[in-house]
Amino acid sequence: MTYCLGMLLNEGLVFAADTRTNAGVDHVASFRKMRVYEKSGDRVIVLLSAGNLSITQSVVNELEEAVRRAETNPETETVWSAKSMFGVARLVGEALREVHRSDAHYLKEFNTDFNASIIVGGQIKGERPRLFQLYAAGNFIEAGEETPYLQIGEIKYGKPILDRVITPETDLVQAAKCALVSFDSTIRSNLSVGLPIDLLCYRTDSLKVAVQRRIGEDDPYFQKLRHLWGDGVRQLFIDLPEPKWALDNGVVKTTLR
Amino acid sequence: MTYCLGMLLNEGLVFAADTRTNAGVDHVASFRKMRVYEKSGDRVIVLLSAGNLSITQSVVNELEEAVRRAETNPETETVWSAKSMFGVARLVGEALREVHRSDAHYLKEFNTDFNASIIVGGQIKGERPRLFQLYAAGNFIEAGEETPYLQIGEIKYGKPILDRVITPETDLVQAAKCALVSFDSTIRSNLSVGLPIDLLCYRTDSLKVAVQRRIGEDDPYFQKLRHLWGDGVRQLFIDLPEPKWALDNGVVKTTLR
Repeated sequence: MTYCLGMLLNEGLVFAADTRTNAGVDHVASFRKMRVYEKSGDRVIVLLSAGNLSITQSVVNELEEAVRRAETNPETETVWSAKSMFGVARLVGEALREVHRSDAHYLKEFNTDFNASIIVGGQIKGERPRLFQLYAAGNFIEAGEETPYLQIGEIKYGKPILDRVITPETDLVQAAKCALVSFDSTIRSNLSVGLPIDLLCYRTDSLKVAVQRRIGEDDPYFQKLRHLWGDGVRQLFIDLPEPKWALDNGVVKTTLR
Repeated sequence: MTYCLGMLLNEGLVFAADTRTNAGVDHVASFRKMRVYEKSGDRVIVLLSAGNLSITQSVVNELEEAVRRAETNPETETVWSAKSMFGVARLVGEALREVHRSDAHYLKEFNTDFNASIIVGGQIKGERPRLFQLYAAGNFIEAGEETPYLQIGEIKYGKPILDRVITPETDLVQAAKCALVSFDSTIRSNLSVGLPIDLLCYRTDSLKVAVQRRIGEDDPYFQKLRHLWGDGVRQLFIDLPEPKWALDNGVVKTTLR
């Protein structure tokens, strides 16, 4: 399983992805699920992927093959030449469809679904930052004011904190912090999502990556965050008032802790 | 969608179920998903159901048909005569299989899965309290020390707080409070889980229901709880320290809120 998260904020973009891949509990490994295409002053594009690793890796390879083809045939559109993030999303969608054409039939013979989803976002000079989510069919949606974040993979455990905190006005640092809390909840509840986390922050109109970090078990900030958050949530819970109906009716006599 | 939760604690049992049912967004209604079989001094049995409403209602009807048959044929085992909670779980499993035999084939013709899951728990005189979860095939698992709670339906949004708080030592009032917080998170993140919530607390060896309440939008305690929890979580989040790497590198200059 995988958890990937992209946020579209007024201040910029935040991306996070875990690195655990498993094909059964006895086959667990770490793979990069975040790809960054950065040309300072021109574009920053970040791609996060979830689903069948052979499919998502093939998609990335298709994109990179195109870059190689463009060396001899400058007409070929690539992540480096696309004029807009919409164009990039369309390229990724086409790559997904190419992999589908070549693999889906064979996967089906082994009862394996063509399972892949991708988040792609960034900024290209002349455009505002944009964020897209692609489905296995190569179609896609774009994040907007009402939906300032997109998630793929194991999305549910980490969603409540995003719903409570993230708006387009959230600043980059708070958003990065929130992404880490969201990952902490997910990692606690789903063993197959695991550290390290790849985290990237991009500031609007900077056209270069602001922060890119790999956060592992021994990251002192993440350790502190997990600790403070876990203890804080428990204390907050304990401090909530008890229901009067449970105490009043005398049936539930209980020692409050 | 549905969210149902059962907890098995040293002090007793807590059950909670939402009441929203939907078959498409234009067909939303309220149905009871909690059934209580109480004979004071002898047994308290609580059944929670998720999945296809026609299936789970048929299961309950099968159980009640058996009670009617038992009037003329005292050999018939029913929820009122079963000697153990294991026996009750087996009865529910058999009812599921009976509904499967009569309906599954026809559902399949309309591309409808035989989708149903049930939590059943309680205490029968002479036994300790027990808690089971049944799958659509009629097979079941039992909660224990290591897994003091069981969930069915839309389980993920409300799981992190359970994982942080609930152990077999948690008292009934704290457990009921935690159930409500777990429902609040779920309701916030999934529109198709809705109020009112049916909540029931049972104290070990009392052999009668301690508290049974329907908690709706206008419930003052639940309103307060949601409010304090929502504000508390946001404040706790704001109070978490900012990552040094985001502040230090000077790229992310941000007004901390």
